[in-house]
Amino acid sequence: MTCAATALLTDFYQLTMGHAYFKLGMSETATFELFVRKLPGSRRFLLAAGLEQALTYLEQWRFGSEELEFLARLGDFDEPFLDRLARLRFTGDVYAMAEGTAFYANEPILRITAPILEAQLLESRLLNIVHFQTLIASKAARCVLAARGRRLVDFGLRRAHEAEAGLYAARAAYLAGFHATATVEAGRRFGIPLSGTLAHSFIEAHDREDVAFCNFVESQRGTTSLLVDTYDTERAAHRVANLAHELAKRADPRRIEAVRIDSGDLAAQARIVRGVLDEHGCRDIRIVLSGGLDEHAIEELLAAGAPVDAFGVGTSLDVSADAPALDMVYKLQAYSGSPRRKRSPGKATWPGVKQVFRRRGAGREALGDEIALQGEDPGGEPLLEQVMSQGRRLAAPVPLAGIREGCSRELRSLPADARQLAEGGASYPVRMSEALCALAAQVDALTP
Amino acid sequence: MTCAATALLTDFYQLTMGHAYFKLGMSETATFELFVRKLPGSRRFLLAAGLEQALTYLEQWRFGSEELEFLARLGDFDEPFLDRLARLRFTGDVYAMAEGTAFYANEPILRITAPILEAQLLESRLLNIVHFQTLIASKAARCVLAARGRRLVDFGLRRAHEAEAGLYAARAAYLAGFHATATVEAGRRFGIPLSGTLAHSFIEAHDREDVAFCNFVESQRGTTSLLVDTYDTERAAHRVANLAHELAKRADPRRIEAVRIDSGDLAAQARIVRGVLDEHGCRDIRIVLSGGLDEHAIEELLAAGAPVDAFGVGTSLDVSADAPALDMVYKLQAYSGSPRRKRSPGKATWPGVKQVFRRRGAGREALGDEIALQGEDPGGEPLLEQVMSQGRRLAAPVPLAGIREGCSRELRSLPADARQLAEGGASYPVRMSEALCALAAQVDALTP
Repeated sequence: MTCAATALLTDFYQLTMGHAYFKLGMSETATFELFVRKLPGSRRFLLAAGLEQALTYLEQWRFGSEELEFLARLGDFDEPFLDRLARLRFTGDVYAMAEGTAFYANEPILRITAPILEAQLLESRLLNIVHFQTLIASKAARCVLAARGRRLVDFGLRRAHEAEAGLYAARAAYLAGFHATATVEAGRRFGIPLSGTLAHSFIEAHDREDVAFCNFVESQRGTTSLLVDTYDTERAAHRVANLAHELAKRADPRRIEAVRIDSGDLAAQARIVRGVLDEHGCRDIRIVLSGGLDEHAIEELLAAGAPVDAFGVGTSLDVSADAPALDMVYKLQAYSGSPRRKRSPGKATWPGVKQVFRRRGAGREALGDEIALQGEDPGGEPLLEQVMSQGRRLAAPVPLAGIREGCSRELRSLPADARQLAEGGASYPVRMSEALCALAAQVDALTP
Repeated sequence: MTCAATALLTDFYQLTMGHAYFKLGMSETATFELFVRKLPGSRRFLLAAGLEQALTYLEQWRFGSEELEFLARLGDFDEPFLDRLARLRFTGDVYAMAEGTAFYANEPILRITAPILEAQLLESRLLNIVHFQTLIASKAARCVLAARGRRLVDFGLRRAHEAEAGLYAARAAYLAGFHATATVEAGRRFGIPLSGTLAHSFIEAHDREDVAFCNFVESQRGTTSLLVDTYDTERAAHRVANLAHELAKRADPRRIEAVRIDSGDLAAQARIVRGVLDEHGCRDIRIVLSGGLDEHAIEELLAAGAPVDAFGVGTSLDVSADAPALDMVYKLQAYSGSPRRKRSPGKATWPGVKQVFRRRGAGREALGDEIALQGEDPGGEPLLEQVMSQGRRLAAPVPLAGIREGCSRELRSLPADARQLAEGGASYPVRMSEALCALAAQVDALTP
């Protein structure tokens, strides 16, 4: 199934509006900005992600002949409009925050300036792309903060919302600081290190657990991990230690690198397993924990002093379980040079073409942001950079490893308050510039 | 991007286990069953969905040459194993519940019997496919029950977890009783009716709201809906009524079919708008509500007597916001003819190859289920039917409209208690057969 490129990945109203713009001759330039209205209570910052895929979509965006035939059959659209769609390509300018940048409510992270027909038709899929990776990177960053340097592996494909989500969750998590993924296709596609050894079914397919362990180790080429919670975790730990000694005795190059515990009271089980392994002199066998983990469970396990070297995080990461969606929108801010806003209750927007400036302290730590109009210079680092001009990228894609490094610096620059996992607390200071406030009042006075 | 068919949509440990099975000569037949361990507190039943896509995946499943080259580069796998993967096709038997069937905890909805290498490698993507549509169909069914016959439209693409999720959410929602989707590609791909007219940006791109309304109606071919909450909803309702009179006066064939309210106190706004429209004699213009709706909001709006004809449901549907994942698993139940189970704390499974029997009352209402071993006949309707034999489908795919009708019957057959939206309450009776309980004890006695 080809998912990414089709221009029919849009809402039907974008086409009915597009039809209207076309017939009315409304072809002026529009600026839309993509931002989050309000952060979930369980998020103190968000990480921008998905820009690379958004730009690829803009480059590849077109209505194919089968798609146009489908639209023609619907009977809602005139032929000249369908002809226009057949020739449509993205010709606009794009400003965006670098992937891995922390951002807050009302701050545009992507800004599209293009003929209104193009900018309108692109809304649904641009949101769909940027929303998801931003959602997952933001969740993953919390796990990274909680894990205090321990290894993190994405285990979430099976409960991600279809395969595309599984792949981009792996990318977003890696970008935010995860170390590996279990999703093989994500390894192939994005160069993310792969991790994984065996599941309970392998143990169960054998009549004896000790034989299963031995068989597994002997069938692998390199180091392996073993899963110890299928029947009785403590007994399994003894079996692992015995096998490790066997391998050492016969100078087998294969080694047991780690054991994984996937159920029960993980802190207690980890302590028992660590004790058994240490007692047998297997201090180098590491402990991996998994099974319903999220950033809070990781924080608690470490606070309880659980002897753990790595975490596998699955469902809670890949669906961002405590906040499975962000209030992310893409709004018209200017048309034909005039600033615009909606005033719907609870959903009013800030008009005009904007830039976000971040003030930083001596150690690069973020002190606060100001959302200003493009052209203002309130000081601080402007976060939106031009990435496309007239439909063309201004630079080659940034390699994922480079984005990941930048993101790591970004997490270190967060104020201490933003790095906390608990709900609520003091929020990061974001102010609107005076000129922006004045413009909002002026637009309201003019709109009938 | 091709999402659906690649065999690398799997977890790395499936391949390391597969490698081990291959090298150990473990090629016997295994039976895996896919089921949900425990329903979320906010679900009283689940609806099986995604079977059609799961079967297509099984039919198309293979390792392509680029994928095999990637695996070879990893260095973890022997060449004979990679050769085996190159020739691998699905050759197993599949039993499944029909899409749209209600089911409960521990009931297998899909059962795969195949050589263990095949059945193991398929785990991750089968779960990924069946989990997502089951998740969304189950959420959508609650909206359908809440809406009491009113029209429901899926608006969720923009915040679905990537495009594939948007498309399959549209399918799952339609299957469960939604009437239409806004996602154009879902209309093309699955034949789902499309719905949608205009967004706030169209209004804002005009200097005057009344001109925007008039322009929009005149640029469309047929009936239209207008969005009335951009600036002042009551005033907009007057403008819609005036425009409707204008159209009638000049005998324009175009008609305003509905207005949509997307923000504020929806019940209060709907009453005001209904009042204005009725006062102007526009009783045939319907009211569509949207904006953060879920089944509870729908139930409350109807309980409050809000004059509403249709609902647009977006984010909460497409991400199943209150329960964004199900505890769905795929577990080895038998290998080489022997029943198997794991006993991990809180995650123990029921061994053996199973069937689910549903007892029904005189009016077809479901009275209770029994999970029994295949071959038992405790009475009632067996819910798992064979759908594939030796890798081939036994019947052509069921058209989506037919599945939707069957699902509608299924929802009518739910006991009154299961149709409630509130958390908790008495649960639907599901028992394990005596033979199954005896088998579990027997397997435990044998497993070391």
